[in-house]
Amino acid sequence: MEKVKLKTNTLKKEIINIFKKFGLNNNHASISANALINAELVGAYGHGLSRLKMYCDRISKKVINAKAKIKIRNISQSITHVDGNNAIGFVAADTAIKIAIKNAKKTGIALVAVKNSGHYGLSGYYAEQAVKKGLMVMVFTNAPPAVAPYGALKSLFGTNPICFGTPTGSKIPFILDTSISMINRGKIRVAAREGKRIPEGVALDKSGKPTTDPKKALEGVQLPIAGFRGSGLAWMVDILSGVITGGNHAGRVKDPFADFSGPQNIGHLFFVLKPNLFVGNSFNKRIKDNIKTIKKLPKIKGVKEILYPGQNKFNRFKNNLKKEINISKAVLKDLEYLRSI
Amino acid sequence: MEKVKLKTNTLKKEIINIFKKFGLNNNHASISANALINAELVGAYGHGLSRLKMYCDRISKKVINAKAKIKIRNISQSITHVDGNNAIGFVAADTAIKIAIKNAKKTGIALVAVKNSGHYGLSGYYAEQAVKKGLMVMVFTNAPPAVAPYGALKSLFGTNPICFGTPTGSKIPFILDTSISMINRGKIRVAAREGKRIPEGVALDKSGKPTTDPKKALEGVQLPIAGFRGSGLAWMVDILSGVITGGNHAGRVKDPFADFSGPQNIGHLFFVLKPNLFVGNSFNKRIKDNIKTIKKLPKIKGVKEILYPGQNKFNRFKNNLKKEINISKAVLKDLEYLRSI
Repeated sequence: MEKVKLKTNTLKKEIINIFKKFGLNNNHASISANALINAELVGAYGHGLSRLKMYCDRISKKVINAKAKIKIRNISQSITHVDGNNAIGFVAADTAIKIAIKNAKKTGIALVAVKNSGHYGLSGYYAEQAVKKGLMVMVFTNAPPAVAPYGALKSLFGTNPICFGTPTGSKIPFILDTSISMINRGKIRVAAREGKRIPEGVALDKSGKPTTDPKKALEGVQLPIAGFRGSGLAWMVDILSGVITGGNHAGRVKDPFADFSGPQNIGHLFFVLKPNLFVGNSFNKRIKDNIKTIKKLPKIKGVKEILYPGQNKFNRFKNNLKKEINISKAVLKDLEYLRSI
Repeated sequence: MEKVKLKTNTLKKEIINIFKKFGLNNNHASISANALINAELVGAYGHGLSRLKMYCDRISKKVINAKAKIKIRNISQSITHVDGNNAIGFVAADTAIKIAIKNAKKTGIALVAVKNSGHYGLSGYYAEQAVKKGLMVMVFTNAPPAVAPYGALKSLFGTNPICFGTPTGSKIPFILDTSISMINRGKIRVAAREGKRIPEGVALDKSGKPTTDPKKALEGVQLPIAGFRGSGLAWMVDILSGVITGGNHAGRVKDPFADFSGPQNIGHLFFVLKPNLFVGNSFNKRIKDNIKTIKKLPKIKGVKEILYPGQNKFNRFKNNLKKEINISKAVLKDLEYLRSI
């Protein structure tokens, strides 16, 4: 499929202008544009520009609040509750991770729960902010129904990622950001937009039959990793990010592309800690030793290097930063539309 | 295989006496016996009496410290570091979860890290203690090498369980306790002891070939769930329970059955929080609604009820509590030996 190339900065300015046209203030527009551009640069296209029009549509239909006033309630020096006031998810999540970082630096640990938020892109993007400040972090969020609980014939859990980040003693952070579905829903969406197939064994159509058609998969059910284990992990994430935060849960988070009947009210949970709490200055030596020892293991034929989670994304980011961003025709059409209105 | 039945209380008393004979005080012997009996009652035989002789052997060889003096260092009202002094794992973990429960009740959240501990049985057993006090909990521990990192030809990660528990508003707690290997190492060990086969696709032998022979699997490599995702989760658990606690990590936890060259120095991490921190009294209503909604989903043919993690174990526990405990011939042989010396 033909692609168009655009410079990162040009593109970022344009996205900021689009969001401002839709009523976001400069700060919120900028936070949102940075998150979308970052997703493109790390190669997570399902969380990048392919979502721009959706965000703008939701603002137009007033199911994202362009003028959100985010409320912060400090429960203790380590515990904070954020009410996103239906802001665009990026802004609610950015507020929350910044509070978590500040409080963890002060008290050693921080727990920040967010309600009334929306889709915020990649969990790893927020985890990285904490790791860059020398902190360890776990991030949980729920998402619209995509995966069937073990034993059920209907999707209810989102792809509910589990995200963990830690400093590594090197400039490449360890960022595990893994959905509990066999495939990321964003990837299925991109395949659908670009007319590609999806792998076998990752999804069922709405009648319960295996499918490699991304459109049928989006109407059907995604399969969790490892049967009841993955289903249990998804359930845990729904409780941590939805039940305890005041967010929607149990399958009530609306699909942002298809359901404009109200805000998503997604919940997030950020847990941040100082990695040197218990072992002091030896943390750096310990984590370096851990990674080095694992990298030295004998490798499967054809594997050049054992990579830790986050290395691939970091490398893609570094390479892409030097280049112009490839825009698919579908995204270009969205951009032209958003410029024109 | 022929089994022998013994009454729970008779058996518990006998285990306490055995541990005392090996030098544990009454309290430590009792904590350890309760954990072993609980594993039998919930049907987790790989963490039950099949390990009793191993624990006693390690005490005899002085790689478990029968007279351990556990050191507790409070870093803040919410953060504690426990040095297990190479106690039997049950006792170090029991100390830690009790501190975590007390501190979470006081401050809303508690983080307790443990070093110089050993194999402690089921993570879910400690999670349940917190849940019974109305708290939400995550538990991480590492374990001897059993699973190969993604891309590696050699085991390094333990089966490194991820454990999460929450009150449910009913008497059956939600306890997810899932190893990130395709099969629990304890189950392979029980199959080996009882001369049974293991399922296909869960392990490789030491040359890298698939095997259903439990003995070959124990010498070889267990497969992680979901490839790089499961490998990443195992790595996360190794960092959370080993690197930051001061415990062994990166494959240095010794196999308790095979390596008597020193203590295991396993690390654990307990994170406990009040589930009503953010939503107050509505938590109970929310979690009940969550579970009820999921249970009401249309079911796959043949599935009677969608179960949440922990329900099966609870039901087995309830049923088994009324009965006598079945002892395999192999365990009976161990018991006779331990009585005799």
